[in-house]
Amino acid sequence: MKTLSTSLCTAVACACSIAVSTPAHGKDPRFTLPPRNVILIIGDGMDYQQITAARNYLVGAFGQLNIDSLPKRSAVQVLTIDEAPPHNVAYVADSANGGTTLATGTVTSAGRIGTTVEDADTPNILELAKARGYRVGVVTSASVTDATPAAFLAHVSFRSCEGPADMYPGVPPGAPPGTPSLPGCLPDQKAAGGKGSIAEQIATGKADVVLGGGTGKFGQTVEEGGKTVLQLAMEKGFQYANSPATLNAIQSGRVLGLFAGSTLLVKFTGPTATKMTFDSAGNALTPLPEPGNCSSNPTFATVPSLAVMTDKAIKLLSRNNQRGFFLMVESASVDKQAHARNACGHIGEMQQLDEVVEMVRAYAGDDPGTLVIVTADHGQAVQVLNEARAGGSGTPMGYVTRLNTPSDGSVLRIGYATSHGPQEDHTGTEVPILIHGGSPAAFVKPFMWQSDVFLMMAKHLNVNLD
Amino acid sequence: MKTLSTSLCTAVACACSIAVSTPAHGKDPRFTLPPRNVILIIGDGMDYQQITAARNYLVGAFGQLNIDSLPKRSAVQVLTIDEAPPHNVAYVADSANGGTTLATGTVTSAGRIGTTVEDADTPNILELAKARGYRVGVVTSASVTDATPAAFLAHVSFRSCEGPADMYPGVPPGAPPGTPSLPGCLPDQKAAGGKGSIAEQIATGKADVVLGGGTGKFGQTVEEGGKTVLQLAMEKGFQYANSPATLNAIQSGRVLGLFAGSTLLVKFTGPTATKMTFDSAGNALTPLPEPGNCSSNPTFATVPSLAVMTDKAIKLLSRNNQRGFFLMVESASVDKQAHARNACGHIGEMQQLDEVVEMVRAYAGDDPGTLVIVTADHGQAVQVLNEARAGGSGTPMGYVTRLNTPSDGSVLRIGYATSHGPQEDHTGTEVPILIHGGSPAAFVKPFMWQSDVFLMMAKHLNVNLD
Repeated sequence: MKTLSTSLCTAVACACSIAVSTPAHGKDPRFTLPPRNVILIIGDGMDYQQITAARNYLVGAFGQLNIDSLPKRSAVQVLTIDEAPPHNVAYVADSANGGTTLATGTVTSAGRIGTTVEDADTPNILELAKARGYRVGVVTSASVTDATPAAFLAHVSFRSCEGPADMYPGVPPGAPPGTPSLPGCLPDQKAAGGKGSIAEQIATGKADVVLGGGTGKFGQTVEEGGKTVLQLAMEKGFQYANSPATLNAIQSGRVLGLFAGSTLLVKFTGPTATKMTFDSAGNALTPLPEPGNCSSNPTFATVPSLAVMTDKAIKLLSRNNQRGFFLMVESASVDKQAHARNACGHIGEMQQLDEVVEMVRAYAGDDPGTLVIVTADHGQAVQVLNEARAGGSGTPMGYVTRLNTPSDGSVLRIGYATSHGPQEDHTGTEVPILIHGGSPAAFVKPFMWQSDVFLMMAKHLNVNLD
Repeated sequence: MKTLSTSLCTAVACACSIAVSTPAHGKDPRFTLPPRNVILIIGDGMDYQQITAARNYLVGAFGQLNIDSLPKRSAVQVLTIDEAPPHNVAYVADSANGGTTLATGTVTSAGRIGTTVEDADTPNILELAKARGYRVGVVTSASVTDATPAAFLAHVSFRSCEGPADMYPGVPPGAPPGTPSLPGCLPDQKAAGGKGSIAEQIATGKADVVLGGGTGKFGQTVEEGGKTVLQLAMEKGFQYANSPATLNAIQSGRVLGLFAGSTLLVKFTGPTATKMTFDSAGNALTPLPEPGNCSSNPTFATVPSLAVMTDKAIKLLSRNNQRGFFLMVESASVDKQAHARNACGHIGEMQQLDEVVEMVRAYAGDDPGTLVIVTADHGQAVQVLNEARAGGSGTPMGYVTRLNTPSDGSVLRIGYATSHGPQEDHTGTEVPILIHGGSPAAFVKPFMWQSDVFLMMAKHLNVNLD
């Protein structure tokens, strides 16, 4: 909640020294350059197992997704440190601190949004770009106050400080077991000198386009009372869209689009995972589930797809804009549906992400001025398991789903076993990064730390050249 | 067991048309070119979780392994088809068919060694290179008759046909549950017109250097009787080494080095994984294990390390050789120790692989004549789990090990849950490939099918230019 730090760097992983100045249009020769754009696509929890499962189901093992055709690839070591001193490394990130590292280059602890472990705010790429004259936007299939978009739009000590009614002391109710001890949301309240909840920071922030879910949080009354967060956002200049039609009707200006109470509907539904159980002697009690099929979610069309939102965001951000833009697009339910062990859910969400990749790549074309990055914030629980194993001693632990794949005519077996509880957990795997366009290949090393992704975007937008 | 197919291609994944001719030294202008070498390093089961676990333990999350510094990266979709018609896709490979795809470009069924699902032999890169005048070798930390080296050295219908005493009808005893129905080893016997067991094929084959374990299989009596497979190999021109000293003493010529009955000793030992158990209501009964430490295996020095074997192999293959060589190096216990849920075992084996990468990269230098490829044959069960979760409802399913990491001072939690049985199982994830040297970047696409790795090697060695 503290004021902007003069340094972007924590003691750990400090590799950057970026100063920000107010842009001087007409004087700075760089403003005569063609527009520069960054489109960062985050598949939340989109690790290699998730991609392979989606490829196998959607196009078959001999097929190729759009993300597979992006021309440059690296791998990203996810970075997390403990909240408590001495801030040792932790090996599994969440969307809050993973998103913060991507957005700010700062490594922090799980749950934190745009703040260091010392609770100092760290400027994010969206703010840095906006301060230099770029238009900026965020699109997500989650609530726009959820951890990943929040990391690009706000600074709070904990991800659950989403709306003014959520400003709990300490760890909020409902936080998952093992959630680290954090200062809670009270110091982020305006009365305490903070910037308010994530929703309030979005409403009063400088983003040009914010599209996703979140009417639940924006319907809450602002800390000072007298109006909702949505009313505050409209006072601050946002046009509001709440349906595909109202979104489509807006042709220019700032837009806040909220199309669900929280997370948007997913594209596919399908069988729930079956929990494998065993007797005290270790013999399998539960037969493997019969193969099922994914179905189109009949209500999906009532919300704009990720591709529709991204298309609109690009149009709004690029229209009559000689400077360029920064856009973050999050495909949130890759992660959320894996937490819930819904294979068709995360596969359908990967299809949404892949549609966005195709569209964005077509927009970028061969122009190196647009840097397209597709990456993940952390790994997930999903594993593609061996369908050749019958039940009995080869039975996997955890939960299993079996799906008939349309392309291969084969059965795809997917397992989840990171948690005995109601939700799967993240894993600590390195994650993929795929890149199209942008500046020379020197930006892409075959192995990166997560903070390098921020540096790549900052370099492309010249925010570190003052 | 059939004679060499005229085509390398199965109906599926046919992307190659390679003819092989006898080299015509002195007439072919290509023989005036500098030597061309391929060094293929296979981390068996070395997927992204394995690499991340090894990185975290060996050099810390902010550290970098030698494999991380290789200059080009792609991802490889593993390819498997069913043994039974219509030969549908299967999504999880084993080392036999994964190795066969890498070695031959042919997609086949799990368990098969250098044979198609129609049981036709498919020429491998080692044979193709040898036929064109290259020296050829295999180094492994497994038995040289194990599936991965066998895929480069032999053609049998099933991986268990390792020695003359192993030529069982049908699926051999001890094969894992779910092993597909295969024709068994009898048609591979010489009496039936076959080429004999894997060990016998190595003994009578054309490899220049074969180093690993395997005295158990080479001590068996050949099918015709009267001698051991080892005696047959020495009759055929192999010098024999059975210790670091005897290996070191050999300076030229063909070498068979066998330094263990089967798999070589591993570098690290450590705590065994703890099985998480739950009561009938789903409450966790087993506390998470206390963090342990990896220890150097005191008997490891009695066998040559993978780096020592690789160094010797390169010296033998490159000495006074203007043509070049093909060398496959397998780090086998990345997989084997993950099957056995020994975290320190697979981490220590990754350290061995990484030592080999450093040495091979130094050997290759900046000379594009040497193509170095590091990849895996399939995924494994290992997952880096969330240490922030205490026991109780967040307890993972399956088996858990916790390790104190020397570099970060943090606790690394590793889980395994693909099988309830005594051994973990492979997974179907896409796998990494890292490349140094070789021909232009055009060879490296950001996404590949496993058969493309064979094509890349074949192109580099010009075996497909006749």
